[in-house]
Amino acid sequence: MTALGTLYGVGVGPGAPDLITLRAFRLITGAPVIAYPAPDTGESFARSIVADMLHPGKVEIPIVIPMRTTRYPAAEVYDQAADDIAAHLLDGRNVVLLCEGDPFFYGSYMYVHDRLSARFTCEVVPGVTSPLASAAVLGLPLVSRNDVLTVVPAPNEDDTLRAQIAAADVTVIMKVGRHAKRIVALLHDMALFDRAHYAERVTIDGAEFTCPLADLGDREVPYFSMIIVQRKTQRDEI
Amino acid sequence: MTALGTLYGVGVGPGAPDLITLRAFRLITGAPVIAYPAPDTGESFARSIVADMLHPGKVEIPIVIPMRTTRYPAAEVYDQAADDIAAHLLDGRNVVLLCEGDPFFYGSYMYVHDRLSARFTCEVVPGVTSPLASAAVLGLPLVSRNDVLTVVPAPNEDDTLRAQIAAADVTVIMKVGRHAKRIVALLHDMALFDRAHYAERVTIDGAEFTCPLADLGDREVPYFSMIIVQRKTQRDEI
Repeated sequence: MTALGTLYGVGVGPGAPDLITLRAFRLITGAPVIAYPAPDTGESFARSIVADMLHPGKVEIPIVIPMRTTRYPAAEVYDQAADDIAAHLLDGRNVVLLCEGDPFFYGSYMYVHDRLSARFTCEVVPGVTSPLASAAVLGLPLVSRNDVLTVVPAPNEDDTLRAQIAAADVTVIMKVGRHAKRIVALLHDMALFDRAHYAERVTIDGAEFTCPLADLGDREVPYFSMIIVQRKTQRDEI
Repeated sequence: MTALGTLYGVGVGPGAPDLITLRAFRLITGAPVIAYPAPDTGESFARSIVADMLHPGKVEIPIVIPMRTTRYPAAEVYDQAADDIAAHLLDGRNVVLLCEGDPFFYGSYMYVHDRLSARFTCEVVPGVTSPLASAAVLGLPLVSRNDVLTVVPAPNEDDTLRAQIAAADVTVIMKVGRHAKRIVALLHDMALFDRAHYAERVTIDGAEFTCPLADLGDREVPYFSMIIVQRKTQRDEI
């Protein structure tokens, strides 16, 4: 009887290929099967980060997530992906599922994990998340000492956003995209507009853009973007 | 005239040597000068993570942080460290300052950054943070979809902890240490004790320990520990 394969949920970080971990590199180059989320048209972002590490001969499983559904990606997509991956695991082949950032930080890996972790060994390899990568690129120390940090996705309602921002020392608003104007207005209203920074596609060669929020202007804001709000004018010096 | 050296604040992740990034590896093995925080007695944790990558001949600058001061580490320690590092940068040598986890996520790197970033090029290399590493080890998806995540250090007052926990979907309480009993009592009082997990020294070989908080018992809790509270009994399935 063949030993079962292991499923690895592997974080590939914010975008720069050299911001993956040594463990991720070893697993990605060694695994016979690589799965990744992909849009219905165009390239998979997760795959693009590690494209140069994928030697010919690997089996690839794109998990195609329809972008324009009225509700969240259909359960059937993940059911099918889990079945496809399970077939390899049953045959004893390890599978690496690539995830932008970190698999358990707003990652789609968890929907496959939910379906397979009772039957197979599933290991998660944590990755560098985009809030920390954005802070690094901006040269903006994020939190120190006893600071409270809150991460809140932009699609939350105004009241939620407002309450979270007011209660934290630093707030990272993720997935800004089409919510940008609403959040800018809200930060103006809270007198925090001048204490916010904007970051998009950080560490991705040729695509990275960051600025004080005050300089954003009419820029088109993509989904992979965030606003970092620092309530304190300056942190305690040491 | 010699070109100035660059200061790199390099995150070395939660503890496992193979959870540093490829960029960190390249910079650490290549830099002529390595600095790191160190206790007054015993080994530097940050240095220990990458000890096998430090070839002889590197200059090492331990930044000795007194552990038992009544206030936060003395400014003089960082003034001196900044001076020592500046001397190398002025001579054109690059310096890598190692940081557990990520330099801008409760890291001491930022105190050196504050002192030198106006005079020298300072680049920050983000790293894997311990909350994500703990979630990975626990097999606990942290946040998905529009979940709100809050990170709050344990030394904050009860009222602050309570308000933050009540407002977030998931709360990571950092630096638990001697605050463990107080936080356990608080979570009991909030009826969230059974929805919490405990993690210490994750990914460190032979030292890692995780469990449901209910199983913690009288265990001695170190500084490098955290409690993860999930308010929802289960997240939305897909």
